Amino acid sequence: MTQEASWTRKDLLGIAELEPGEIRAILDTAETFLEVSQRAIKKVPTLRGKTVVNLFFEPSTRTRSSFEIAQKRLSADGLNFSAKTSALTKGESLVDTALTLQAMQPDLIVIRHAYPGAPHMLARRLEAGVINAGDGAHEHPTQALLDAYTILQHKERLAGLKVAIVGDIEHSRVVRSNIHLLTKMEAEVTVAGPRTMMPRAAETLGAKVVFSLEEAITDADVIMMLRVQLERQSRLLFPSAREYFRLFGLTRERLKVAKEDAIIMHPGPMNRGVEIASEVADGPHSVILEQVSNGVAVRMAVLYLLSGAHRELA
Amino acid sequence: MTQEASWTRKDLLGIAELEPGEIRAILDTAETFLEVSQRAIKKVPTLRGKTVVNLFFEPSTRTRSSFEIAQKRLSADGLNFSAKTSALTKGESLVDTALTLQAMQPDLIVIRHAYPGAPHMLARRLEAGVINAGDGAHEHPTQALLDAYTILQHKERLAGLKVAIVGDIEHSRVVRSNIHLLTKMEAEVTVAGPRTMMPRAAETLGAKVVFSLEEAITDADVIMMLRVQLERQSRLLFPSAREYFRLFGLTRERLKVAKEDAIIMHPGPMNRGVEIASEVADGPHSVILEQVSNGVAVRMAVLYLLSGAHRELA
Amino acid sequence: MTQEASWTRKDLLGIAELEPGEIRAILDTAETFLEVSQRAIKKVPTLRGKTVVNLFFEPSTRTRSSFEIAQKRLSADGLNFSAKTSALTKGESLVDTALTLQAMQPDLIVIRHAYPGAPHMLARRLEAGVINAGDGAHEHPTQALLDAYTILQHKERLAGLKVAIVGDIEHSRVVRSNIHLLTKMEAEVTVAGPRTMMPRAAETLGAKVVFSLEEAITDADVIMMLRVQLERQSRLLFPSAREYFRLFGLTRERLKVAKEDAIIMHPGPMNRGVEIASEVADGPHSVILEQVSNGVAVRMAVLYLLSGAHRELA
Repeated sequence: MTQEASWTRKDLLGIAELEPGEIRAILDTAETFLEVSQRAIKKVPTLRGKTVVNLFFEPSTRTRSSFEIAQKRLSADGLNFSAKTSALTKGESLVDTALTLQAMQPDLIVIRHAYPGAPHMLARRLEAGVINAGDGAHEHPTQALLDAYTILQHKERLAGLKVAIVGDIEHSRVVRSNIHLLTKMEAEVTVAGPRTMMPRAAETLGAKVVFSLEEAITDADVIMMLRVQLERQSRLLFPSAREYFRLFGLTRERLKVAKEDAIIMHPGPMNRGVEIASEVADGPHSVILEQVSNGVAVRMAVLYLLSGAHRELA
Repeated sequence: MTQEASWTRKDLLGIAELEPGEIRAILDTAETFLEVSQRAIKKVPTLRGKTVVNLFFEPSTRTRSSFEIAQKRLSADGLNFSAKTSALTKGESLVDTALTLQAMQPDLIVIRHAYPGAPHMLARRLEAGVINAGDGAHEHPTQALLDAYTILQHKERLAGLKVAIVGDIEHSRVVRSNIHLLTKMEAEVTVAGPRTMMPRAAETLGAKVVFSLEEAITDADVIMMLRVQLERQSRLLFPSAREYFRLFGLTRERLKVAKEDAIIMHPGPMNRGVEIASEVADGPHSVILEQVSNGVAVRMAVLYLLSGAHRELA
Repeated sequence: MTQEASWTRKDLLGIAELEPGEIRAILDTAETFLEVSQRAIKKVPTLRGKTVVNLFFEPSTRTRSSFEIAQKRLSADGLNFSAKTSALTKGESLVDTALTLQAMQPDLIVIRHAYPGAPHMLARRLEAGVINAGDGAHEHPTQALLDAYTILQHKERLAGLKVAIVGDIEHSRVVRSNIHLLTKMEAEVTVAGPRTMMPRAAETLGAKVVFSLEEAITDADVIMMLRVQLERQSRLLFPSAREYFRLFGLTRERLKVAKEDAIIMHPGPMNRGVEIASEVADGPHSVILEQVSNGVAVRMAVLYLLSGAHRELA
């Protein structure tokens, strides 16, 4: 419990501001929650009587459901708001919506918003703890944490690992949070993708930048494939899904240059046959579904630490 | 409890594959749950800590709310997904959505889907128990079970009863599940409807086929009126709602040819003045609202049996 | 508990029909629930095993979330239905929807509907208690109750207070419920707004009618600013938002004519810079966020009293 006791932040806004010790505190705490989901009675009373508001201004299945399940397994009272049903359609500002929710005394607010920095603005204004569930192309900290947890399960360390992240680097909050986390924990990160999907100042992200899938994954311990946003294709970032697959799609054949025990990750939802072949997604190297399982445990850990429940117990 | 102990299926996909003993096991179990909804405190701890996902790809009020209430009264943790909020809008396949949900370790998945066989496909892939809440025009097993339960409350038997089912036979999953159940339990089923709403191979359903309301309901013990899908009317299955009512609408006058103690059923929602006159819907023979009440008890029974909770207790 | 014991109504449909003693009973009961939301464990078991259906046929964030949080903090089982997901899209009548829900044995139904009198119609048909959460421009009783509670917190009385209500008087259910409540409790109410937003028979509402903001708020103890329905502006009730603000927007400057300790209220969501300046909304006289906090307590009180839980305890 020494790790937990050291947790003092009210919010989880991004990985950028976390110390390695804080990252370890979350991952260690997740370890204790993992088995709750494997019991016959998947529930602990830890957050009983705590109110958690899920404020999703962008559609989401997996992240929202992961948070919701985490809340129920902790016995928290969760409330869901989505953009369409919110007062925002009546022209209320995000701050007023948040202050109104705050006045109902929630303990935690989980927010996904298209605007980078939206969770930070709320965090400054609200007493409730704020968890960033994705803000534009900025950060998605619980995704990076569940990715790290999954890597640790297989590799038992992060330091010194070669990690390749492949796809639309420019528009991905998953990439930003993962580079922050992995470099803090001393992994070596290489990003790869088409030039049209690479930010101009990619090197400043803290990762090595290449433009070839093969180069990125050669000798890699961990390969993270990113979702291609087919809905953005109108902006002509690449000629076609078929062309993308030809250049950056991960196949069993291409995987041969990676380490023999490399693991394949994907934040989901996958485009099979675009960024990843089904033979890889469903193959022996894939840990994609483990990521989902670990997501519930990691979010239980974050909810627990931010709720202050560990301080009440201490 | 001997009936319950004999329940071994992981899923409830349709009535077609059930043995009469399994049908009786569900109906007997429902009996024990019926009074829970009549208590001042309408809740038992039976499924505490079980996670149930309600995955509705078609809109539904009554079936979804019935399952949700059943879950809450059993103290299960229920999660709701509807098509619009799901990752499917991002192009993910049903199987990937299901595998993702599975990775969050739900105990049961309740699915309604426009595609016949969708629940079966999930059931083969998933460890979680799958409950079919309606798949296209194929099956809707909990509806047939609650119908059977309601008939038993009034008639104390199914064998030998004359049951008439009237309306759009071709597009109705309710009809298919009911014919399976009623014929397995040795009732005599007659279906009636306009020729445009009758499948070509109607006889192969296992019921007598007629094209006149009067013929179908003469001497009937039980009359089930089906909802006319007014939204399908553009396909010109019948000239008008008024014309439908003239030919197949159940009125007090027409009801005279049925048995004196006949009961009138409807799966809802009703089109008053189209398939059924209000005087009948609200009259003394109607058991339509009892069907709704029984639906909660039957779904509690199904959730209980599929969750394996009865085996844990044994 | 003597106040509570005197509560005998099944429904809360409007303020019009309440006796002053009944209003006091609700407000006294709210007092006992206020601190629940300030605890570390924000939950009491009072309504455990009670089923509450939230039936919202108009979009709402704050009222619905306030009711939902109130339900969770009372340990009730809440179910949500919104217009779009309901069977009404299949053409079912409101009465049939309600009877169907009733058959599932809910204890309470919270309804918001565009049609004045919709909750009353349900209340006559249903055994469940019905709470009006807003019916057209008719009543919104829990809003008036939380407003009264907030005034009492600051003024310790209602009788003799000067209350100004400013804005779109014609289309506001908040105004109607507040005038009923405040005049029953012997406050003096003045309403003000543009002539295009004033009902013809405004005097029959029981309040003094003026057409100038200044006149309404001079010497006022309490000022309630109403939301301007910008979405109705197409009907040209006023030339522009800017013009509205010039004539009826509450600013710090204008506030000088009110009592020095006047409180400023708003049912939300606010249009900053239209009916109220941010300097006032966020200023020392504003009790707008307290209204939201009190809303949860008042709704807990109403749910508790209507559920009959106080009679079960007695």
